[in-house]
Amino acid sequence: MQREEAEFANEAFYLAFAEKDIQAMDNIWAKSAPVLCLHPGWPLLSGRDDVMESWRSILSNPSQQPIDFYGVQSSALNSSTVAVVCYELVGGSAMVATNVFVQEDGQPRIALHQAGFCGNPPPNQPLNRG
Amino acid sequence: MQREEAEFANEAFYLAFAEKDIQAMDNIWAKSAPVLCLHPGWPLLSGRDDVMESWRSILSNPSQQPIDFYGVQSSALNSSTVAVVCYELVGGSAMVATNVFVQEDGQPRIALHQAGFCGNPPPNQPLNRG
Repeated sequence: MQREEAEFANEAFYLAFAEKDIQAMDNIWAKSAPVLCLHPGWPLLSGRDDVMESWRSILSNPSQQPIDFYGVQSSALNSSTVAVVCYELVGGSAMVATNVFVQEDGQPRIALHQAGFCGNPPPNQPLNRG
Repeated sequence: MQREEAEFANEAFYLAFAEKDIQAMDNIWAKSAPVLCLHPGWPLLSGRDDVMESWRSILSNPSQQPIDFYGVQSSALNSSTVAVVCYELVGGSAMVATNVFVQEDGQPRIALHQAGFCGNPPPNQPLNRG
């Protein structure tokens, strides 16, 4: 998997989040790999059922703040795994997030998501896009 | 790589941290994979030089609080990548941390570390050790 493929899938993840599109969110999460998810302030979620239930809850919550992201940096950990780190803006709060993508059925899918509050986010401008 | 191998390496990571053993810490980080590291409150560190410099700074800091960890859960993301999630106790603060291990030279090495403050850690008791 190329880093660019994972970065593109990372954009799809945040688009699904922003548009509250549960089907797109479901598509982007790994189906074979045992997934892990750490939402800010939540206990660790392990396994696809619990993770997708959390997304249904978040995406259907009318109080959920809009989300945007910036500052993408990625790293190919090995030939089939890419980690993408970026900053999230959720309402007035900044988070730092890692999304680890694995290759499944020829496309990158998220196997691990961790987002946590970030005390000192970098300025909101693209860091790695030329 | 088996999950158990990564969990064992995860213990070695925290032992190196607790004992402020910079050589052991150096040994546990990937040498080929491009590493990423998110310490709590730090900007993203990318690349082995910056990451190891951060550990030299942390491990040589006389004010660094003792560290302990618990609540290990792991997931084999694919055949050569295992994510280990656990909770860290640093001084009086609880963190949630992810360490992603890749296979290098026949052993698991950390390619990604993210630790962040955790508002509601689970009770401090082994979760996954039978």
